[in-house]
Amino acid sequence: MSSVEIVDRSSLIGGLYRELVLDPKQTAIVTIDMHRGHLDMDVATMPAKPEDAKRVISNARAALDFARARGVPVIHVVLVYRRLPGLGSEGMVSPFWKAMHAGQTENDRLTPGRKSTVREHNIEGSPGTEIIPELYKTGDYVIDNKKRLDCFYGTDLRLLLDTLGVKNVVLMGINTNTCVLNTSFTAFNFDYRVVVLSDCVASMYGDDLHVLGLQNVARCLGWVVTNSQLFEKLDSAGSDVRRATAALAK
Amino acid sequence: MSSVEIVDRSSLIGGLYRELVLDPKQTAIVTIDMHRGHLDMDVATMPAKPEDAKRVISNARAALDFARARGVPVIHVVLVYRRLPGLGSEGMVSPFWKAMHAGQTENDRLTPGRKSTVREHNIEGSPGTEIIPELYKTGDYVIDNKKRLDCFYGTDLRLLLDTLGVKNVVLMGINTNTCVLNTSFTAFNFDYRVVVLSDCVASMYGDDLHVLGLQNVARCLGWVVTNSQLFEKLDSAGSDVRRATAALAK
Amino acid sequence: MSSVEIVDRSSLIGGLYRELVLDPKQTAIVTIDMHRGHLDMDVATMPAKPEDAKRVISNARAALDFARARGVPVIHVVLVYRRLPGLGSEGMVSPFWKAMHAGQTENDRLTPGRKSTVREHNIEGSPGTEIIPELYKTGDYVIDNKKRLDCFYGTDLRLLLDTLGVKNVVLMGINTNTCVLNTSFTAFNFDYRVVVLSDCVASMYGDDLHVLGLQNVARCLGWVVTNSQLFEKLDSAGSDVRRATAALAK
Amino acid sequence: MSSVEIVDRSSLIGGLYRELVLDPKQTAIVTIDMHRGHLDMDVATMPAKPEDAKRVISNARAALDFARARGVPVIHVVLVYRRLPGLGSEGMVSPFWKAMHAGQTENDRLTPGRKSTVREHNIEGSPGTEIIPELYKTGDYVIDNKKRLDCFYGTDLRLLLDTLGVKNVVLMGINTNTCVLNTSFTAFNFDYRVVVLSDCVASMYGDDLHVLGLQNVARCLGWVVTNSQLFEKLDSAGSDVRRATAALAK
Repeated sequence: MSSVEIVDRSSLIGGLYRELVLDPKQTAIVTIDMHRGHLDMDVATMPAKPEDAKRVISNARAALDFARARGVPVIHVVLVYRRLPGLGSEGMVSPFWKAMHAGQTENDRLTPGRKSTVREHNIEGSPGTEIIPELYKTGDYVIDNKKRLDCFYGTDLRLLLDTLGVKNVVLMGINTNTCVLNTSFTAFNFDYRVVVLSDCVASMYGDDLHVLGLQNVARCLGWVVTNSQLFEKLDSAGSDVRRATAALAK
Repeated sequence: MSSVEIVDRSSLIGGLYRELVLDPKQTAIVTIDMHRGHLDMDVATMPAKPEDAKRVISNARAALDFARARGVPVIHVVLVYRRLPGLGSEGMVSPFWKAMHAGQTENDRLTPGRKSTVREHNIEGSPGTEIIPELYKTGDYVIDNKKRLDCFYGTDLRLLLDTLGVKNVVLMGINTNTCVLNTSFTAFNFDYRVVVLSDCVASMYGDDLHVLGLQNVARCLGWVVTNSQLFEKLDSAGSDVRRATAALAK
Repeated sequence: MSSVEIVDRSSLIGGLYRELVLDPKQTAIVTIDMHRGHLDMDVATMPAKPEDAKRVISNARAALDFARARGVPVIHVVLVYRRLPGLGSEGMVSPFWKAMHAGQTENDRLTPGRKSTVREHNIEGSPGTEIIPELYKTGDYVIDNKKRLDCFYGTDLRLLLDTLGVKNVVLMGINTNTCVLNTSFTAFNFDYRVVVLSDCVASMYGDDLHVLGLQNVARCLGWVVTNSQLFEKLDSAGSDVRRATAALAK
Repeated sequence: MSSVEIVDRSSLIGGLYRELVLDPKQTAIVTIDMHRGHLDMDVATMPAKPEDAKRVISNARAALDFARARGVPVIHVVLVYRRLPGLGSEGMVSPFWKAMHAGQTENDRLTPGRKSTVREHNIEGSPGTEIIPELYKTGDYVIDNKKRLDCFYGTDLRLLLDTLGVKNVVLMGINTNTCVLNTSFTAFNFDYRVVVLSDCVASMYGDDLHVLGLQNVARCLGWVVTNSQLFEKLDSAGSDVRRATAALAK
C-alpha cells in the first residue's frame, strides 16, 4: 500500500490563522448533506463510516448551538433527487455515476468496504433526505434542491448569503473531499472567506481523501479550524475588528 | 512529518476504466493555465517545480499533437488579471489572497520552498500570460479571461464545448489540486465525462496535493489516465462504440 | 396618451413559423408563476387583471392537458420568498423594489389601477404561493424557489430540462413582459428553441407591455403561437421530422 | 397596421426618479455592442438605422466623457464570434438564428427594411468587432467575449463590477429591446440598481420595440433617464446621500 508524506505548511497556516477575523454579523454556517442518507446507518444509501457519523453529528450540534446563540444564521443544504418516469433517479444522467453502476458491484462502489448506491440515494420523499433531527432548529434555512456536488449549483444559496449580508461561509458536512471541497472552491471563486470545520466533516470515500480535502482548503483557498478555534474567533471578532481598524489608522 | 495511507481502490478504478469510451468526435482537450507564469522559470510569478514544468510541457505536447491529428479540438484556458487603478491586480479582492500577502513573506506563500506572488501574477500584457509556445498550434481555441480557480467561471468555456458537441472533457495543466480539480468538479456537475491526464498535470503546492488531487478525481468523479491510455481510448473508440451498441442489442 | 405603431413583420413571422418543428419527445412546458398570488383575486398580492386571470387559467388548462396526453412534461416554476428576521421578505433587498415601496402608495405601484405589494408577495406558507389547482396534475414537476424574474436563476430548471432531454421550451404564465420574457431570453441564450403561448400569458403591468413581450419574442428570439398552433405542431412533428430529414437527404 | 396605447405611468416613474441616488463611486457605465457591426454603415452586418447610429454615438460620447471625468469606470462589452471549421460562426448553433437563415431572405431578417446576417456578424478579426473609436478611451475596460444577448452570460462582467465596488449599472448601446433589455433583467436579478440611458440606445428591430423596451425597464425593473438627468444625479449624489442619511436619522 502506498503512502503520501504531507508537506509541512504549519508556518503558512499559522500566519493565515492570525489574519482570520470572523464577525458573527457577516458569518453564516452552511451544513452540507447532513441527512440520514449519509449519517443514519439504518437508512443510509451512501453511508459515512459509523464512527464518523457519530463524531460529526455530536460536534456539529455543538457548533450550531454556539453559532445560533450569537445570531449566526444556519443554512442546511441537502441533495434530493426526483424519480423520473423511464429514467429512475434524475442523478443517473451523470456519465460517471452510470459507469459506477455499470462496472461495479454494490460492494465495490464509492464507499470502500460498505455498500452504496447512487441510483437509490435520496429519492424525493425517502427517509434519507431528512436532515438529522439534532442539527435542525426552527429559524434555520433549508435549501433542498442540491443536485450535484456543489451547494451553489442550481440553488439559491448565493442569493440567500448575499441577502443575509454574509462574507464568511463556514462549512460542515459530508463529504470533506467532494461536496465540502467543491463548495469551498465555489465560495472562494465568489470571494467569500471560506472556513471548514475539521471537527464536523468526514468522508465516505476514505480517510486519505478526508485529509486531502482539509489540506487542500488550508493551503490553497481558505481556513480549516476546530470547533474551539471557531468559537474563539466568533467571540473575539469585536476586538479583532477594533485591532484591524486601529492598525489601518496607523 | 505525518503521512497518509492511500486507500487501495484499484478494483474500482479498473472497472471504471473498462467502461470508458472516448469518441474523438465528442472529445476536447482543455489545457489549464499552461502559461509562462507557472511554467517558465525565467518569468514565473507562481512557479511549478522546474522538473515538473519540464515533464508537463513535454508530455502535454505529445498528447496535444496526438489529439489534433485525430480532429480533437484543443482549448487553452489562461488566467489574466487587469491592473485596476488604486487596487492593483483585480485578483487581490480575494480575502484569502489578501490574507496570504498580509501574513506571509515571499518565501512562505503558496509554493513551498519557492517565492511566489498573487499580486504580480499574470497581469495583462506581462510575459507570464503567454501560453507555452510548444503547446499552441494555429486552430486551437484560446479563452484568456479566467479569473479564479474554475475554468468555467466567468468564461464561455461551457458554451464553446457545447457548440463543438463535446461530451468528454480531457484536462491537463497546472495545478492538479486547484484549477484542474475545481474544473473537474464543475465539468462533472455539468454532466461531462471528466478525464484528467496524469502525465500532464503538476502542483506548485506540493506532491502530496498532486497525488491526492488525482485520487480524488479517480475515486469520486472521473477518470485519471496516462498519455498512452488516452491514445488507446481515442483510437479504439470506434470498436468500443460498436461493442457498446452490440451489448445494448442483446 | 401616446401610442406606438407596431411594425408589420408578418412575412418574417410566417417564414419562421414554417421552420418550427416541435417533437413532443424534445419538448417541455414551463409554467411561470401560475400561482394564486397573481391569479386568484381573493388572495393575490400582485394581481393580474381579473379577466386576464380567467382567460389564462382556462387556456392553460387546455394546453397542459393536451401536452400531458402526448407525454410532454410539465414543469411549474413558482416564486416563493422567505421572511427573514429584521428584513422582512427576502425580495426586499432589491433596490428597485425598495424604491417602489419608498416612493409610491399602494395604489400607484407595479399594477396600474390595482393595489399591489412586493413586500407581502408570496411569502413562504402564504396562500399566494399555491399553484392554481386546475393547472396541476400528479406527475408534473414543481420548482418553487424562483426568487427574481428569471426562472433559470437560482433554480435547477436547466438541469431538469437537460435531464429530460428537452430542446424546445414552451412558456406560459405571468407576466408576459417580465418573467416570461426574461425566461425567454435566458432559454434563447442557452440555445433552447423558445415558444411562448399567446393564449396563456398576461401582464399585470399593462396591455402595452403584454404586446411588447410577445412582439419581442416573435421578432428577435423565438416563436409566439396560439394553443391551436401548438397542438398542430405537436401532432405533426412526426411528419415534419420526416420531411426535414428527406430535405437533408436531397 | 396596428398600434398600441402606452399606459400612462408618469406618476409612478416620477416617484421612482425622486428615489434615485447615483453615487459616482458606486456607479459604472456598461456599453453594449457599441461596435462597427451595428453602427458603422460601411461594414455593419446587423445595422441600426443610420440616423440612430449617428444620434447614439454622439450622445454616448458626451455621457462617457462626463462619467470618466467623475471617475466612473466605463466597461465596453462586445459580441465576437469564432469561426469554427465545418460549422461557420459559432453563433449559428442557435436554433432561432438557424431558422432565420433557413426561412428568410437577406431582405426579410431581423432588421426591417435593411439587409442583415447573423452568419457573418462580428466574426473574430473582422472590422465589425471594433468598438466605435469615439467611444473608447485608454483606461476603459473591454470584455469582448459576449456570445448571446446577455452581457453577463459567459463573461466576467459581474466579477469586474463587484471588484470595482459597483452597485449602480448604467447601460447604453444596441439594441434597446434585446441586449440592453436582457442585460437589464440580469442586472436587476443580481440586485444592481439598473439605469438605461434613453439618449444612448436604439433598436435595429424597429422603433416600436425601442419604445416598449424603455417602458419595460422604467415600469418594471429600473430607471430610464436622459443624459442630462444622469449628469444631474451624478453631480448631486453627495447631497442626495446626505439627505438620505438625515432622513434615516429622524
